[in-house]
Amino acid sequence: METEIVVALDAMGGDFAPVETVKGAVDAVKEMNVHIKLVGLESAIRTELEKYTYPQEKIEIIAASEVISTDEVPTMAIRKKKDSSMVIGMQLVKNKEADAFVSAGSTGALLTGSLLIVGRLPGVERPVLGTCLPTQKGFTFLVDSGANVDCKAKYLEQFGKMGSVYVENVFGKKNPSVALVNIGAEKEKGNALTKEAYTLLEESSLNFVGNIEPRNVPFGEADVVVCDGFVGNTILKFAEGLSKTLVGIIKKEITKGLYKIPAAMLLKPFQNVKKYFDADEVGGAPFIGLKALVVKAHGSSNAKAFKNAIRQCVLFKQADIIGKIQDRL
Amino acid sequence: METEIVVALDAMGGDFAPVETVKGAVDAVKEMNVHIKLVGLESAIRTELEKYTYPQEKIEIIAASEVISTDEVPTMAIRKKKDSSMVIGMQLVKNKEADAFVSAGSTGALLTGSLLIVGRLPGVERPVLGTCLPTQKGFTFLVDSGANVDCKAKYLEQFGKMGSVYVENVFGKKNPSVALVNIGAEKEKGNALTKEAYTLLEESSLNFVGNIEPRNVPFGEADVVVCDGFVGNTILKFAEGLSKTLVGIIKKEITKGLYKIPAAMLLKPFQNVKKYFDADEVGGAPFIGLKALVVKAHGSSNAKAFKNAIRQCVLFKQADIIGKIQDRL
Repeated sequence: METEIVVALDAMGGDFAPVETVKGAVDAVKEMNVHIKLVGLESAIRTELEKYTYPQEKIEIIAASEVISTDEVPTMAIRKKKDSSMVIGMQLVKNKEADAFVSAGSTGALLTGSLLIVGRLPGVERPVLGTCLPTQKGFTFLVDSGANVDCKAKYLEQFGKMGSVYVENVFGKKNPSVALVNIGAEKEKGNALTKEAYTLLEESSLNFVGNIEPRNVPFGEADVVVCDGFVGNTILKFAEGLSKTLVGIIKKEITKGLYKIPAAMLLKPFQNVKKYFDADEVGGAPFIGLKALVVKAHGSSNAKAFKNAIRQCVLFKQADIIGKIQDRL
Repeated sequence: METEIVVALDAMGGDFAPVETVKGAVDAVKEMNVHIKLVGLESAIRTELEKYTYPQEKIEIIAASEVISTDEVPTMAIRKKKDSSMVIGMQLVKNKEADAFVSAGSTGALLTGSLLIVGRLPGVERPVLGTCLPTQKGFTFLVDSGANVDCKAKYLEQFGKMGSVYVENVFGKKNPSVALVNIGAEKEKGNALTKEAYTLLEESSLNFVGNIEPRNVPFGEADVVVCDGFVGNTILKFAEGLSKTLVGIIKKEITKGLYKIPAAMLLKPFQNVKKYFDADEVGGAPFIGLKALVVKAHGSSNAKAFKNAIRQCVLFKQADIIGKIQDRL
């Protein structure tokens, strides 16, 4: 029989906690062979849990009396709030009482805490945040999407390796193609960092396909795209703003004027467009290279997103990503 | 009487040269008090010019027997092709036989040539490429959009100053707001470069409004947005790819299925959307901080884009941007 995987979930993290976190946990245990430790304010979690029927032995509450908010300074918050849901959750992982930790709370606190409490795998220079970007062909895995804003070339090489292992084993894509985000297609293009990283990636055992210009990222021309966390986070956030702007302009144009199309006719199509870019389907951004998996769920995650983040943790553990990363590095 | 402004135009640069370059020049002299020096292959230019009626004294041909292509190594091309339209054009500017130079040819060659031939203004650390990004409120001026891929904080401060002078005087926006592209809104966010640049911008005389997160750039929250050329070029190119992808998905969704809308009904609305993002309206990306203005027109520029690039040069000269930049730095 398969071992049951234990996932700690920050019940207090995200805009809709604990309602959506608890619902996500309940949905997950119904679908997967997983045990969930809901970390947070006990009474609030219990109130939510009472709404559902589910296999009781698969969910337990781990009490934590404090909550770290998104506007706190990360290092301070992690150091001072020892009894916060985030710190307690990461300690569960550190003490091997959980295989993975999911939180939709403060990104900064989660990254800082992961390094301080969970710790890096031996050989990992910098753990990396990976995000699935929707593309014309499905999605592309963007590493680093925001954890390391100042990078050395060798970090980027490792991001490629960790991203490749993750995509191959969690998403089932064999020998994924890896590209370097760069402002020119040719090897000699770019800044000092990308020029050096190109050489390292080229000499690695990865399926490295060269530079990818940012305009080609949405076309889905590589499975894994590598960049430093400043550039990756810029791409991620700019995509969000530009999509909103474009959809707004298009809606306005096609519902106005002589050729006006009734807005009601557009409801369903635009719902589909939204679905296409649905981050909830993926669940969260894994923080890879730690001694255990930590997944950053989006602040606006709903139950479906939490369930899918938990699924990511299950796949991660089943595929022994940690062992595979250690083999690769 | 106003002095006639002299603009050198690379007649051979761009995907549709010399047809569109020559037409752009003809349209410009009909509308503005400008004298154009069309630089390139004499017979090809003459053939095009013969198609039009225009004030003949306002256009002259400056023969250049070579053309630099976009796949040549910039430094080599500039050094070897002494009789290329690009080199000759820049020499006209250097020798004060023209006030500005417009080219839709190789970006790399144009930037390299500008530094080598036209030269920096005293006090300018690095000339900067500025691009008008369409936003919900009009446009925002992105500096640097690709000229300097490795930057120091003091370069970024100067980009802000040069961008501010340009937007104020060429686009008529008084005391433009200047923001720093950063992955967090708070002062302490970002990488080593942006943290240092923030302090410099804050202490400057600019109307500095702080960090702008990339998601807010398309909303038009600042008149000038400052970043290094790697990040700026990434934003620019990613915007191009994402817009195409999104428009494609939306078109597909609204023309398919039960709620299908006839494609013909969408023709005009999507033409309007395209117009909204019409780079031709602006003309080109000015390379600011040189002893004269050099404008990089998009490779796919049409006559309208060239005419508008020429208009930029006229405004630049009339407003004495060079004098104002020197005052500011």
